[in-house]
Amino acid sequence: MKIGLDIMGGDYAPKANVLGAIAAHPLLSPDEQIVLIGDTKQIKPLLSENGFDPDLFEYVHTEEVIGMGEHPTKAIVQKPNSSISIGFNLLKEGKLDSFASAGNSGAMLVGAVFSVKTIPGIIRPCLSTFLPKLSGGVGLMVDVGANADCKPDILLQFGVLGSLYAENVMGIGNPKVALMNIGEEDEKGNMLSLATFPLMKDTNLFNFIGNVEGRDLFNDKADVIVCDGFTGNVMLKLAESFYVLTLKRGLKDEFFDRFNYENYGGSPVLGVNAPVVIGHGISSPTAVKNMILQSRDMITTGLVGKIQAAFNN
Amino acid sequence: MKIGLDIMGGDYAPKANVLGAIAAHPLLSPDEQIVLIGDTKQIKPLLSENGFDPDLFEYVHTEEVIGMGEHPTKAIVQKPNSSISIGFNLLKEGKLDSFASAGNSGAMLVGAVFSVKTIPGIIRPCLSTFLPKLSGGVGLMVDVGANADCKPDILLQFGVLGSLYAENVMGIGNPKVALMNIGEEDEKGNMLSLATFPLMKDTNLFNFIGNVEGRDLFNDKADVIVCDGFTGNVMLKLAESFYVLTLKRGLKDEFFDRFNYENYGGSPVLGVNAPVVIGHGISSPTAVKNMILQSRDMITTGLVGKIQAAFNN
Repeated sequence: MKIGLDIMGGDYAPKANVLGAIAAHPLLSPDEQIVLIGDTKQIKPLLSENGFDPDLFEYVHTEEVIGMGEHPTKAIVQKPNSSISIGFNLLKEGKLDSFASAGNSGAMLVGAVFSVKTIPGIIRPCLSTFLPKLSGGVGLMVDVGANADCKPDILLQFGVLGSLYAENVMGIGNPKVALMNIGEEDEKGNMLSLATFPLMKDTNLFNFIGNVEGRDLFNDKADVIVCDGFTGNVMLKLAESFYVLTLKRGLKDEFFDRFNYENYGGSPVLGVNAPVVIGHGISSPTAVKNMILQSRDMITTGLVGKIQAAFNN
Repeated sequence: MKIGLDIMGGDYAPKANVLGAIAAHPLLSPDEQIVLIGDTKQIKPLLSENGFDPDLFEYVHTEEVIGMGEHPTKAIVQKPNSSISIGFNLLKEGKLDSFASAGNSGAMLVGAVFSVKTIPGIIRPCLSTFLPKLSGGVGLMVDVGANADCKPDILLQFGVLGSLYAENVMGIGNPKVALMNIGEEDEKGNMLSLATFPLMKDTNLFNFIGNVEGRDLFNDKADVIVCDGFTGNVMLKLAESFYVLTLKRGLKDEFFDRFNYENYGGSPVLGVNAPVVIGHGISSPTAVKNMILQSRDMITTGLVGKIQAAFNN
């Protein structure tokens, strides 16, 4: 198994990525191999500084980098030797089993769709984020920004994708899937949610439990919350800002600590033909370590194959 | 001046409403008269229990009540003697200068539009909520649930309504108005925000400062944040749930205390021909007291006349 990691992506690259890989290594079995993609002239000194045997990783050398502010599609097209472009090429060729980066999110999304392609039958891939539950568990919210405008059949598919990730990678049996809405009652909503509700109610593709509201992210009503990418992105950033506010106010709390994105690795891209993980731009070594473990779990659970099977009916 | 208050609305009616009116009274000048609308047989004992002179209030007796779970339009039509229906009739007839209730929000919104009507030139009235700023100030978000689906010209008008409320009632000079979006850049967004951005950029009706994101609710980038009612409602409920989480976790903090809805009274309905305030269903005496003061401020600042003037060009 080859777990691809972009060493050049993210605000603290390459150091945070290299340190994350070092931290992940002892947690992997011998056949779970991390492949570092980036400038080996920058990587090797970081390894020796930390007394890490460089032979324990594999390397793909490249010096070109896609910046955080670059236009995603242009960057992917115009920088074929960037670490992100090369990572996706290797993933497409089967020389990697997964690819993760804390770099330009848009370029990662575009790269995934351009290279390994959307799974046949899926209209739009989506991005997901993790929700710490007050009771101790973890939930999932999809989409959080890949698709600003959605149609009902797209949201229905997000329900399938989220449910399969929750069941297979997060180990939640028969995940409770809910639709984000402005009321719990069946007839509440905007045009999108009103049109989506009956599709979800009638589906046997997942365990739909009805509408949830903005207040239900951190309780146990739902394991998977489905929304359009505009709503999800706004909620994700609001939730993140709350965590930052608790830190700014000097509030120390075990539950709010679980809002720290570092705990979850990155945001899995669901609906493409290979495991892809997009990390937060400010990914720390801990976040990168968890992205690697998350990539491994997406591979070992055969998530992509299960999604392909679900949509190949 | 006659400030109308529905005594029968809200989860803790009539007691919380009567206690709120008692608390507001000493803060009002002699010509600022509170009119209690509801069952005087329930009101009077509460006044005597608290040693309050009943002659200091005016009363409109009615026993009929619109329940929290009733269908708004049906309830308004079928219960003409309910406290909410009677309150709006008095408001329409000019016998009240404002009307506030912590009862059925939908019925309050429908009642406002049916009775005093939408201001000519305004497409859709909106609901707003207050945002405590980390720096100490307070901001405003519109719409938070009256209009689940919006068009660009509707959002543009929300900007005007929010700006006028912020400037006149909240005393914020030249309020900074922003569009809620999924990125700060001009070209980010969903179809709605992409189409709204140029309208706002070109307007001279308010001081547009560009896009903000979900993380910007509590900082000083914007005084007024405009969004569709679906997005606003989801964000409002998420923010409320965070405040509840800090309480559940036993976190005590001056900033998070300011999330307490009680501090702000209720949600002003903007865009109808009279001051209307909708309280939170769980309104406490403090919340009701603040709803009364807020109603008074909406009257004394001549907010409605200023909105009418702004749309009468």
